[in-house]
Amino acid sequence: MRLWQNPASPFARKVRIVARETGLLPRIEEIAVMVSPVSPNADLAAHNPLVKIPALQMDDGKVIYDSTVICEYLDTLHTGVQVIPSDATRWEALRLQALCNGILEAAVLCRYEGFVRPEAYRWDGWVKGQFAKIRNGLDALASEAPAWGARFGIGQIGAACVLGYLDYRFANENWRSRAALASWYETVKDRASVVATMPA
Amino acid sequence: MRLWQNPASPFARKVRIVARETGLLPRIEEIAVMVSPVSPNADLAAHNPLVKIPALQMDDGKVIYDSTVICEYLDTLHTGVQVIPSDATRWEALRLQALCNGILEAAVLCRYEGFVRPEAYRWDGWVKGQFAKIRNGLDALASEAPAWGARFGIGQIGAACVLGYLDYRFANENWRSRAALASWYETVKDRASVVATMPA
Repeated sequence: MRLWQNPASPFARKVRIVARETGLLPRIEEIAVMVSPVSPNADLAAHNPLVKIPALQMDDGKVIYDSTVICEYLDTLHTGVQVIPSDATRWEALRLQALCNGILEAAVLCRYEGFVRPEAYRWDGWVKGQFAKIRNGLDALASEAPAWGARFGIGQIGAACVLGYLDYRFANENWRSRAALASWYETVKDRASVVATMPA
Repeated sequence: MRLWQNPASPFARKVRIVARETGLLPRIEEIAVMVSPVSPNADLAAHNPLVKIPALQMDDGKVIYDSTVICEYLDTLHTGVQVIPSDATRWEALRLQALCNGILEAAVLCRYEGFVRPEAYRWDGWVKGQFAKIRNGLDALASEAPAWGARFGIGQIGAACVLGYLDYRFANENWRSRAALASWYETVKDRASVVATMPA
């Protein structure tokens, strides 16, 4: 399989952590591409009309996206612990993944506002609105984290990607003021899958 | 169950069409709320930290989101034709849903750019980049539509929401120039679920 990704993309990172947690990495070629909403990549565009990463070419040649679809697909290819449960806890896991995706979408929009959009067109009201979502989301993660225990499923993988992305792009955002979240992150940050995919 | 939604939201519409197609509407109270990225809604915020619609409160009181999670959950509550297949065609259906979600995300960002952001801070480069995704996506839908036949699963429901949203918010965008897509839409636009949820 071929995975279009970039080490800076938190959505691609989610897939790359799943690939490592499930032992599937040897079957996946990770192809690094640079994309932004205003500078598309021709190779990727031929496989994903949205020109977004991650995208995965399966062994049959077909391409799937987005990160949630790829993670669920990969989860069917191994016999270890499921990343996405099939039992009654599925909805809680998928909701937590969606919460993390939403925080990341808000953070990526803020990144674009500050680094892609020309300075004259930046609007503080937009960044404030997105940061309200980020901080409400972090409050929710902090309230939920104590119940996670040692579980490292799709929701927790998403949370690790959220916190890693904030450290990487918004180092001044003091998310560690939420003690429950900070202490949970300490329990996962040294996992091999997390270390190997840390944005540099 | 309670569904936070708004008739103008294409993501909420996806859920509302699924509720009608699967016969679940009598079990769902649809609650209309107004939200924008810069004016959150307190009732919704108490249930979804991202303050986004749609969000669904299940009968056990727990709340799930986003639209993809809600649609999959609803699909487990009925015994009719599955909206999201469980067989090998699942990945194609979920990829098509993700394509439609991506087109809608780009369109909604353009809507915010043109109607939420103050005029002085609007940037043509952003709208151009998002419209490239919308049009690439529409080209892909047009190339795929002839193979859909009479199927009206999650991917086709997403496509109907894309086309309805463009008519509603971007009526000058001539997506019907893609004949295959225009003729497919004619086959679904009069379905009861589509008519009942058409944004006005």
